[in-house]
Amino acid sequence: MRPAVVLLSGGLDSATCLAWARREGFSAHALTVDYGQRHAIEVERATALARRLGAASHRILAIDLSFLAGSALTDRTVAVPKDRSRIEIGSGVPPTYVPARNTVLLALAMAWSESLGARDLVIGVNAVDYSGYPDCRPAFLRAFETLAVCGTRAGADGEAWRIHAPLVDLSKAEIILRAAAWGVPYASTLSCYDPGVAGAPCGGCDACLIRARGFREAGLEDAAPDG
Amino acid sequence: MRPAVVLLSGGLDSATCLAWARREGFSAHALTVDYGQRHAIEVERATALARRLGAASHRILAIDLSFLAGSALTDRTVAVPKDRSRIEIGSGVPPTYVPARNTVLLALAMAWSESLGARDLVIGVNAVDYSGYPDCRPAFLRAFETLAVCGTRAGADGEAWRIHAPLVDLSKAEIILRAAAWGVPYASTLSCYDPGVAGAPCGGCDACLIRARGFREAGLEDAAPDG
Repeated sequence: MRPAVVLLSGGLDSATCLAWARREGFSAHALTVDYGQRHAIEVERATALARRLGAASHRILAIDLSFLAGSALTDRTVAVPKDRSRIEIGSGVPPTYVPARNTVLLALAMAWSESLGARDLVIGVNAVDYSGYPDCRPAFLRAFETLAVCGTRAGADGEAWRIHAPLVDLSKAEIILRAAAWGVPYASTLSCYDPGVAGAPCGGCDACLIRARGFREAGLEDAAPDG
Repeated sequence: MRPAVVLLSGGLDSATCLAWARREGFSAHALTVDYGQRHAIEVERATALARRLGAASHRILAIDLSFLAGSALTDRTVAVPKDRSRIEIGSGVPPTYVPARNTVLLALAMAWSESLGARDLVIGVNAVDYSGYPDCRPAFLRAFETLAVCGTRAGADGEAWRIHAPLVDLSKAEIILRAAAWGVPYASTLSCYDPGVAGAPCGGCDACLIRARGFREAGLEDAAPDG
């Protein structure tokens, strides 16, 4: 089986990506980066999800990005916005943007991949329901593939890299329907930017609102997290 | 003064880059990434150099990349090659290549830069005397600039990023002459891949050999490290 590295945050989208990679026949190595984000409970969820979804291995990498000022996910002086309307969520880069986050995550995934002999990376970015994040767009992913060829031994040896973003063009409802069909235990995933201590979703942040709308549109019920 | 982030390893090249940035009029914020490399003594040297060379601030970021198998700088089962000839050093990617290292370093520098409001990154890569590393080539740096525009809020707002590599086309002797002219305390820098506990250079690794040749060609004496 061809190896791939899957970025696994513990959220619904990345868990669905892990299930996608397994269905595609990859031996899927899951990488969780614990960057000191508000939702550290995600790291626990990721461990359970990696096991349930048949990851070939799971690595948790700690890097403290709490010095990144101005992001609601790393800087505790910045509030996570709550109860925004659909129009507000869709306009501009939100305060939950973490500077260069997906560049950092893909760089670490690429480092591990090259060491494993994998040339396929999988990331759960989505350009539809989170269109405010610049590093979720197809142009960013293509630029990273070019960078990967220029900046690695594998690339210098003539090998191509593929950044797979199987959810990039899907609505949240479409993602949820795939997760359900592929056996993703979505009750164990956590989307919330501001969860309670035990991982209870806040219900008001953009991620909670988008998830709730997705389940409504998919006609499914979002079971309570099973811890 | 315009801010810039300078990657500062504690080696001769990155110290010279910090001096370059100050001379160019940047307010230079130094970033040292302690990735569990063999030469951890470099981190101490970096702290002293940041102070001596007038960095506006200095941040040390720890991330354990020791799981990256196959690199002599992160994997202790891989030996640092010693006493290679000039021809051997110049051929192919050396075992001291760390997978995706400069991508990881630039990603972290870019994250901090965006948070600081800086759009200029400085890295001491060199395509002449270390031509074996793919992520030291101009094509890699240009690909990173493109990625930076695609993957950041600043880029989405129409701002350009500059990756400055002021040493990229210089020989080691030329770098040393600039370091001397610009007041870099090069005796405090450490180039060795396999130093002793107190930072004494091994004298036989590629970095030591290239440095020794550079000083010879520059007609200068490499003072013993002053600790």
